[in-house]
Amino acid sequence: MTGHDSAGHDAPGAASPAGAAGGRAPHQLWGGRFALGLEEAADRLNRSLAVDHRLWPQDVRAARAWVLALGRAGVLAPDEEVTLVGGLERVGERLADGAAAGAPDEDVHTLVERLLYEEVGELAGKLNTGRSRNDQVATDLRLWTLEAIAEIDREVAALGEALVGQARKGLDLLLPGYTHGQRAQPVRWAYVLVAHAWPLTRDRERLADAAGRTAELPLGLGAVAGSGMPVDRTVLQKLLGFDRLSPNALDATGDRDFVAETLFALALLATHCSRLAGELQAYASSEYGFVRLADGYSTGSSLLPQKRNPDVLELARGKAARLLGDLSAMVGLLKGLPAGYSKDLQEDKAILFDAVDTVLLTLPALRGAIETLEPVAGCMERALDQSLLATDLADKLVGAGVPFREAHTLVGRLVRAAEAAGVGIRDVGTDVAQGIHPKLPGFIATLGSWDDSVERRATAGGSARAAVQAQIEELATAFQVVL
Amino acid sequence: MTGHDSAGHDAPGAASPAGAAGGRAPHQLWGGRFALGLEEAADRLNRSLAVDHRLWPQDVRAARAWVLALGRAGVLAPDEEVTLVGGLERVGERLADGAAAGAPDEDVHTLVERLLYEEVGELAGKLNTGRSRNDQVATDLRLWTLEAIAEIDREVAALGEALVGQARKGLDLLLPGYTHGQRAQPVRWAYVLVAHAWPLTRDRERLADAAGRTAELPLGLGAVAGSGMPVDRTVLQKLLGFDRLSPNALDATGDRDFVAETLFALALLATHCSRLAGELQAYASSEYGFVRLADGYSTGSSLLPQKRNPDVLELARGKAARLLGDLSAMVGLLKGLPAGYSKDLQEDKAILFDAVDTVLLTLPALRGAIETLEPVAGCMERALDQSLLATDLADKLVGAGVPFREAHTLVGRLVRAAEAAGVGIRDVGTDVAQGIHPKLPGFIATLGSWDDSVERRATAGGSARAAVQAQIEELATAFQVVL
Amino acid sequence: MTGHDSAGHDAPGAASPAGAAGGRAPHQLWGGRFALGLEEAADRLNRSLAVDHRLWPQDVRAARAWVLALGRAGVLAPDEEVTLVGGLERVGERLADGAAAGAPDEDVHTLVERLLYEEVGELAGKLNTGRSRNDQVATDLRLWTLEAIAEIDREVAALGEALVGQARKGLDLLLPGYTHGQRAQPVRWAYVLVAHAWPLTRDRERLADAAGRTAELPLGLGAVAGSGMPVDRTVLQKLLGFDRLSPNALDATGDRDFVAETLFALALLATHCSRLAGELQAYASSEYGFVRLADGYSTGSSLLPQKRNPDVLELARGKAARLLGDLSAMVGLLKGLPAGYSKDLQEDKAILFDAVDTVLLTLPALRGAIETLEPVAGCMERALDQSLLATDLADKLVGAGVPFREAHTLVGRLVRAAEAAGVGIRDVGTDVAQGIHPKLPGFIATLGSWDDSVERRATAGGSARAAVQAQIEELATAFQVVL
Amino acid sequence: MTGHDSAGHDAPGAASPAGAAGGRAPHQLWGGRFALGLEEAADRLNRSLAVDHRLWPQDVRAARAWVLALGRAGVLAPDEEVTLVGGLERVGERLADGAAAGAPDEDVHTLVERLLYEEVGELAGKLNTGRSRNDQVATDLRLWTLEAIAEIDREVAALGEALVGQARKGLDLLLPGYTHGQRAQPVRWAYVLVAHAWPLTRDRERLADAAGRTAELPLGLGAVAGSGMPVDRTVLQKLLGFDRLSPNALDATGDRDFVAETLFALALLATHCSRLAGELQAYASSEYGFVRLADGYSTGSSLLPQKRNPDVLELARGKAARLLGDLSAMVGLLKGLPAGYSKDLQEDKAILFDAVDTVLLTLPALRGAIETLEPVAGCMERALDQSLLATDLADKLVGAGVPFREAHTLVGRLVRAAEAAGVGIRDVGTDVAQGIHPKLPGFIATLGSWDDSVERRATAGGSARAAVQAQIEELATAFQVVL
Repeated sequence: MTGHDSAGHDAPGAASPAGAAGGRAPHQLWGGRFALGLEEAADRLNRSLAVDHRLWPQDVRAARAWVLALGRAGVLAPDEEVTLVGGLERVGERLADGAAAGAPDEDVHTLVERLLYEEVGELAGKLNTGRSRNDQVATDLRLWTLEAIAEIDREVAALGEALVGQARKGLDLLLPGYTHGQRAQPVRWAYVLVAHAWPLTRDRERLADAAGRTAELPLGLGAVAGSGMPVDRTVLQKLLGFDRLSPNALDATGDRDFVAETLFALALLATHCSRLAGELQAYASSEYGFVRLADGYSTGSSLLPQKRNPDVLELARGKAARLLGDLSAMVGLLKGLPAGYSKDLQEDKAILFDAVDTVLLTLPALRGAIETLEPVAGCMERALDQSLLATDLADKLVGAGVPFREAHTLVGRLVRAAEAAGVGIRDVGTDVAQGIHPKLPGFIATLGSWDDSVERRATAGGSARAAVQAQIEELATAFQVVL
Repeated sequence: MTGHDSAGHDAPGAASPAGAAGGRAPHQLWGGRFALGLEEAADRLNRSLAVDHRLWPQDVRAARAWVLALGRAGVLAPDEEVTLVGGLERVGERLADGAAAGAPDEDVHTLVERLLYEEVGELAGKLNTGRSRNDQVATDLRLWTLEAIAEIDREVAALGEALVGQARKGLDLLLPGYTHGQRAQPVRWAYVLVAHAWPLTRDRERLADAAGRTAELPLGLGAVAGSGMPVDRTVLQKLLGFDRLSPNALDATGDRDFVAETLFALALLATHCSRLAGELQAYASSEYGFVRLADGYSTGSSLLPQKRNPDVLELARGKAARLLGDLSAMVGLLKGLPAGYSKDLQEDKAILFDAVDTVLLTLPALRGAIETLEPVAGCMERALDQSLLATDLADKLVGAGVPFREAHTLVGRLVRAAEAAGVGIRDVGTDVAQGIHPKLPGFIATLGSWDDSVERRATAGGSARAAVQAQIEELATAFQVVL
Repeated sequence: MTGHDSAGHDAPGAASPAGAAGGRAPHQLWGGRFALGLEEAADRLNRSLAVDHRLWPQDVRAARAWVLALGRAGVLAPDEEVTLVGGLERVGERLADGAAAGAPDEDVHTLVERLLYEEVGELAGKLNTGRSRNDQVATDLRLWTLEAIAEIDREVAALGEALVGQARKGLDLLLPGYTHGQRAQPVRWAYVLVAHAWPLTRDRERLADAAGRTAELPLGLGAVAGSGMPVDRTVLQKLLGFDRLSPNALDATGDRDFVAETLFALALLATHCSRLAGELQAYASSEYGFVRLADGYSTGSSLLPQKRNPDVLELARGKAARLLGDLSAMVGLLKGLPAGYSKDLQEDKAILFDAVDTVLLTLPALRGAIETLEPVAGCMERALDQSLLATDLADKLVGAGVPFREAHTLVGRLVRAAEAAGVGIRDVGTDVAQGIHPKLPGFIATLGSWDDSVERRATAGGSARAAVQAQIEELATAFQVVL
Repeated sequence: MTGHDSAGHDAPGAASPAGAAGGRAPHQLWGGRFALGLEEAADRLNRSLAVDHRLWPQDVRAARAWVLALGRAGVLAPDEEVTLVGGLERVGERLADGAAAGAPDEDVHTLVERLLYEEVGELAGKLNTGRSRNDQVATDLRLWTLEAIAEIDREVAALGEALVGQARKGLDLLLPGYTHGQRAQPVRWAYVLVAHAWPLTRDRERLADAAGRTAELPLGLGAVAGSGMPVDRTVLQKLLGFDRLSPNALDATGDRDFVAETLFALALLATHCSRLAGELQAYASSEYGFVRLADGYSTGSSLLPQKRNPDVLELARGKAARLLGDLSAMVGLLKGLPAGYSKDLQEDKAILFDAVDTVLLTLPALRGAIETLEPVAGCMERALDQSLLATDLADKLVGAGVPFREAHTLVGRLVRAAEAAGVGIRDVGTDVAQGIHPKLPGFIATLGSWDDSVERRATAGGSARAAVQAQIEELATAFQVVL
């Protein structure tokens, strides 16, 4: 017993059989031309309420706007308009109270129309005059996506703030900067943290760009060729808060670029989280020991009593793969489809909802882990070994007129000599150093402190104090704006 | 309001807050070494019961086997063993009655242990002696996967039977065979149907191969290094019906190859369904008109009263993209992880369950659509135009000693002449044909019927009657075996 | 013999063994600290010249800017600066003459430095003072990407123009608009064409957004922590034409967001091409017959003399999958990497180059196919069957006060009656129609021409003449701008 | 200048324009029915020689078999057969000498036929009697794939042997086993190495399964419906070494399951390499220091003289993403295609070749890195901290009758007390330990050596000496077989 039949769906309708007589739900938006209803297997595959019920607030909102537009166009009489608007309000209340749970309907649009019938009777049959589920669902999903992007953007900014907060406290902590997983040069802990904050600013730009292209209204375009009713679409646009009108019905009803683009922005955001989380997961190991996760963000083992596991970080890393899957699914879905609506597109919602849910589950946990992280200065310091000064030495040779490539080779030899002698490069015998280059011993003597070394890289964007402080301030402003 | 917070989860535990005091659930498999409990955001990300509750039958089954093995090893006294087995039986009954719904536990393993405490008291604390969630979940998921594969295999065979059933009825129906979406040569309708049945036989082989590699028992391997209890793992293997033992604990606890391989087999199966569905979707259009879907597998439009939409076929096509996404997610998840258990692996279940659910939703609907499909002989016949005989003519020229490449060119010219004259190639003027090659008019005269043409391709695997009949019989046997 | 060893690489260096002594190439940017050179298998995996040689123009350009900046910072003497700039000019000339072919170097940076040694001697060793391959390759690749985007953008605009050009000629051609692959309502051929042009305007926006985020200069950031030389990065920025500076060295050297974002924009563009191509491929079939591909964009069969295959369209469709693969590879590559440079990132170029090459191969061919496409009016007209007027009838009933949902059901019944009688809905017996609704016969009588029907959907974005003409003008302006 | 136009192709034909008159190459397998040749943009997209030239050995081999089969069927006269076989032999020699370089042909099939014309004149026109490029390319690619799998399998076995070789030497080295990146329990170094060898045995099984399904002969099935010539396909099967015949022409010409399955096997293999490489990359860091890469498998930095980078390991990790991309591309390519040949399938080769090349570049480098790896015993030992004995203590409490769950909690408390006191768990004050459980001090005293701890996990598959030795022997046999 695999259990998939009983738990594959997350919501209303999943458990409800399609209805006694041939599988048709009682209320339906179509069917006049058919002698018989849907078979159960077809109905189970076709039915989308278990997924799309989440669109009900958007569906009701768009329905209300549509009624107003039909009224303005004279398609509905004033009293009809009033009755329908009132009915929709009550439908919204019932849905907010959970009316979607266990509903027998094919999809959210059918559900809303059925409830409206219950509220206002036959007049409900006028709601969808000149409107198709094709322009309807595209409108609902765009509204939903805009809200999801706004919510995610707030969480991304909050994560950025957490990084900036830790960076402020970590300006004086020095540790190795790594490339290839190997110690490279000393840097500030704050500098590492802001390195992970900058990608979030790009994520927010991408989310904003995606939102900009999502804010295009399909409503009023009908099924494929425009609406047969003389509705003024700019009225709808203003009522629903879109930036502009979709320019072509055939394009707009089959276009899911906005979903794909949002998924890409989320996949890259999740990838950034995975990079941050992966790096912290290493730093939280006994071997690095650079950070200690708070108890509230650590988990234990069912078998090993001593374990202190960074599950939050590992999950944040793993989720990037799930988002990659969602993105692949959506791009793959669109491949080769003609313009206009194809039922394949129904998959868009399950994919998008999964991605948004996943990101909204991950960001707050990751933020909390960072806010409560404790850097361990002693471990950081112990990791600063003398070889990290090799470039400083080469730069000093450059100052003495040695071409850099040659200086690089000379210091390379010094490193080899130090390794052979089992000492740090500062502690190589003077004669040996002098044998490599006469000025080396003198330069070694003037290497100074770790802080001196860090401050030598003072170009904009480097790890020197002023450069990092400037970054912190710029990021603090960037992340604060939205809150 | 995007609604994702309230509906992102599909099952027990989703709605239950993590508990008053710091977010820890009341019963927990770990925690002694921590001063404080999990924060809520961490708990929400970490908690997996909403997904893994589906593993309860496997978890109870494996727990029972573990108790028996502990008993045999002398780790449990006989009466303890009896009590625990009895307790687990009652736990299973409670879970079958829905005890997982609303449960506050971190995961299915915690849930089962907690319920066992409720049944047998402190003795429950002995259940997981020498056992870790790492070997436990790997065992549960392998058991689940084996059952899922078996169920899917039955559905694939049933789909194959449906194709064979239609093929038996379609042996005499002729239509164009297509390449590049263009008419190529006349073939039998039965031949087209079996062409889509053969891939299913390969799918079943791949599923069987995946099952073979899944049937390897991890239980008794502990968290990372083997169990500290002297349990005989071959006892467990027999009790749980596995083929052999996983050979290495570090490998077995971090290995999800069996999930990836199952997902690949399902993705390719879904791709085959998409190819079949895509082809039928075209044939169900007014332009081809080769098949008519039954009412029970057709849907309507909310705006266009005349529409008769092949939603089932389009959904079957689209689902292939979702499976591709699941596969990508899983392979991406594993990239770069060290051996042994990492929490990233927790994602495996959501991905696998989604894939299995999707396939089990799709196959029966597609099968029903095929079982009830009506071929439309008239449309098929009308699509057989004379150009489909071009290769026959070239072959006749070959028989007269003309090298094939030249014959191909000559008939190409005939085709061009026919197009220019606006006639079929049989109706090109004799003088024109003769001007191309003196024997052409004679060969044109002996082209015979469409059936003659089909029978000319009598190699094994071709579209001639005997070849197709042989395929039907072979496939019928292949698909029958399991039922 | 699989042949992969001899043909796996596309360019210089592929065939050249790594060098006699232990596999090290003669010139190398590192090595002082090693006793022994790279083994051959390691060298083959590590060597990237066969791929990255394409970056030589960017590498030389960035090297020149770096020399000027070092000069301004006083790190190079004026005569050194002049000599190096002159040397780089000659290096560029030699590379333009093919000097990369057969070069033994590890990568393009080594190649350029070696050639510079050949031109100016030991002074060449000063070129990379304070510079790392980490900031270098990020700069080169950003420059390359900006040029690639510009080139692709021009091709996208040209494809858009081709669609607009055909649309101008197709304003009066009517054909069915399709949803679910089924005839839905009559539309203009021009309308279908512009429906495929609009996505291209979004693609260009996305490409521009990607370019905007690519135009950020990493140069001067060193390997991980900033440069040790007091170089003014804004000088570099202006010399190389970037919009702004990368703000953090650790981020900038490990950031490949710009590659991923470009790949996404290209994957979605390729998906749009696949949708256009897929739809045209169907229309080019004998069954639809709506369009005829020019000879110059059709191919034949090696066996079937009559075939006229739309290979260009099928390839354009298939390429979308390849782009999806490139996108997946890049997002998957980044997952879990720490900030800063990891060698994994070397894969970025092979992936990006493949995607750009593929798109630049596809767009011109698709454009040509569209420019030379001939619409077939007769076939389009024949496909307009009476059922396409069903919504018009329902709308007329709405005008008479029948709620739309009821009107939909009534017309559905009419469709069923027509099918049963084997006639079109205009030709159903008056009594039958009247039995369904008393006003139906009258409405049927006033349905008018196909053109009348199309003009009834006159909302902005619909298929009515004025709406389509407005779209054509808007698109013409949009695509013209760049040319 | 992006440079993609000049370097996008890897081989013959890339540079050669399609020919003066309208873009047709001089020799062509089709064209009689066309008035005009291919336009250049179409030709560039359509031409596949730059990729498929690698199939020439397979194409010549299959051509030879086809000639023999045509002879046996009486379609060719004995002397024709002899002449053609001789001609093909010379064609093969010319191709081995590089005749494909710069060839103007559309694809490898055209190339071979053209060269045959050069060798034997007009008789060459009989070569492809009753044969289509559709069955031809499917045959060639299956032959190529079988050879590629065999070659890869040898490399996988060699990598496995390298791991086993190191494992033999590492039986006495102890280090922490990790879960979640955290130290868990002591294990043997040999045990870690074999944990990465076991997945390779599964990879080889999957490769063998893929090969088994690839060994199915399409030749003799024509373009879509079977061959018009009475060729005995079993003769072909034996000549070409296939296991059995493809059962259906429509299926076989459009089936690329074998490519997808091979790509999946390679993607999972690459994922295993990425896991091994990723783990070793961490162990090669200064923080772990468990292994030292040989100079021949280490690389340096262009800026930082001291760096010793594990590029080989990082590249092996990154390549897994590229393989994921190839797999996604192939599965995405197949989605929704009808049965039979569609030109989209031409993409299969570029994808498969890229994957095979990538794997064959990676495996030898990774193997070399492992063969020459030096374990660093001191670092491993230093990483064994007392907390790794926590489970041993819990197990001892279990032995004294404490239920495991309670024992786990008690030891967790001991760990917390040790941390608070800043000591290891063996060094917690006796009174403190006694306060947690009276028997704890005694059990702490009997914990013994690290080796004692490892030997306590003696279940099959655990890390105890005998269990690891058994694994080594089993694996040695498994990997030896093929060599």
